[in-house]
Amino acid sequence: MPLHSRIEPTIAAAIAAGQGGKAPPKLARALDYAVNPGGARIRPTICLSVAMACGDGQPAVANAAATAIELIHCASLVHDDMPCFDDADIRRGKPSVHKAFGEPLALLTGDSLIIMSFEVLARAAAIDPARGIDLIRILGESTGMPGGICAGQGWESEATIDLGAYHRAKTGALFTAATRMGAAAAGYDPEAWTELGARIGEAFQVADDLRDALYDEDTLGKPAHQDEIHNRPNAVSELGVRGAIRRLEDILSGAIASIPSCPGEAALCEMVRKQAERLTPVVPAQHAV
Amino acid sequence: MPLHSRIEPTIAAAIAAGQGGKAPPKLARALDYAVNPGGARIRPTICLSVAMACGDGQPAVANAAATAIELIHCASLVHDDMPCFDDADIRRGKPSVHKAFGEPLALLTGDSLIIMSFEVLARAAAIDPARGIDLIRILGESTGMPGGICAGQGWESEATIDLGAYHRAKTGALFTAATRMGAAAAGYDPEAWTELGARIGEAFQVADDLRDALYDEDTLGKPAHQDEIHNRPNAVSELGVRGAIRRLEDILSGAIASIPSCPGEAALCEMVRKQAERLTPVVPAQHAV
Repeated sequence: MPLHSRIEPTIAAAIAAGQGGKAPPKLARALDYAVNPGGARIRPTICLSVAMACGDGQPAVANAAATAIELIHCASLVHDDMPCFDDADIRRGKPSVHKAFGEPLALLTGDSLIIMSFEVLARAAAIDPARGIDLIRILGESTGMPGGICAGQGWESEATIDLGAYHRAKTGALFTAATRMGAAAAGYDPEAWTELGARIGEAFQVADDLRDALYDEDTLGKPAHQDEIHNRPNAVSELGVRGAIRRLEDILSGAIASIPSCPGEAALCEMVRKQAERLTPVVPAQHAV
Repeated sequence: MPLHSRIEPTIAAAIAAGQGGKAPPKLARALDYAVNPGGARIRPTICLSVAMACGDGQPAVANAAATAIELIHCASLVHDDMPCFDDADIRRGKPSVHKAFGEPLALLTGDSLIIMSFEVLARAAAIDPARGIDLIRILGESTGMPGGICAGQGWESEATIDLGAYHRAKTGALFTAATRMGAAAAGYDPEAWTELGARIGEAFQVADDLRDALYDEDTLGKPAHQDEIHNRPNAVSELGVRGAIRRLEDILSGAIASIPSCPGEAALCEMVRKQAERLTPVVPAQHAV
């Protein structure tokens, strides 16, 4: 994907800044380990796609926005994998950070990456104060309390879960951050872009439910059929496989319809369509109708 | 202390903002629990004292700076107390956050408070962009990698410790943040105020070593004589009790001498002198010379 050529160097520069000076060597290595090699970099890709659709008048600011989102996403993965949460030994095909570096350094890696994401935006704010400050505000809102990804995780410690608030915060918040920050980085009103992010987030949730139901552990790279085993509410148990696929298609049509008028509207629709194809699972023969 | 009447309402407002909307209730309570009732609020007191010495032209920005420092200091205490670090059951005379709320919520409390500290500064940046952005940059530098408090903690996972870098990052960074951010909030050059913060940080380190050596567990509110038991490098083993007290006095004279010229110089010197009296331990009879 050509956008990776914008995202990767900015991420690398942020990590290198965190490793400079008299940094403790292991924690410095852990920062890089947590972020590279990356996954699909889907959130920064969405962020940059929106910025480009909005004219991309400040590419350095858009790159900073994309990088900040990815760094804080990686931070959340490092903390989520720790024994007190998911206790996951493997992430992206290699030992999780606490398995490779120990729990103290995993905790500090997450903390450092959170802080780094705001530092990246502070440097962008030195280029364009109004946009940079807006980006810092949106990133905080999308990641902290009361409605960001920390809040989403926090719901998992409650006896009674507000499912709407839970999904909006846990999965949705970083997707709406991606579209809003892409727009804000290009000087557009971020709020008009909330619905696109929310719908892409929902689509990811349904696609995830489908993959969990349809694929085996080898294909997924993680244990399969977890929703069924843990009796978790999910789109497939609610709607069946075909119904969930129709729901995914509906959400993505809604996402495309929600795109605000902007110079690069056509290209952005195309990007969302491509993501939709990537998301929609191949249905094995026994589920085909 | 009269400054508390400025600090506490701003901290309370920040916590209330994090608890608003559809926040998960336990995590919302944990945010308040981690921050209130506070300790001596020494870092925000230093920050506001410097801002006032510099004319305090933007009191709301100075209050935000002081609050951000205290929130991120509390975040670091919550994470430090967790089982993978100090495994401390008690903090400020009550169960530590992970003891009261469990490890998952303690981890999220720390993360949320880190993010909240940047949100507080983003709101200050909406009032005064140049000063607000400077504050965000300094807070990031003082807390993350390669030289902030995360880096300081990170050194504890190294086989060979760079002691200078370790103390500068672990204890010093938030004290230099306090003086630099106080100056920046009032529109003064923050760098001229680094030495004052560094010397106050050193003074705290020596005073801590003295208290650990001289006082018992009841007086300290935590286990005593830990440096001796763990054979940790400290000012008392290096210099003896009287030597360490002389060293403390020297550092504090140096701190006062380092204060840059500013409208409220005399009052600030007085504040540092008062802190010095508070810091200097009463030497029990058997150590008196």
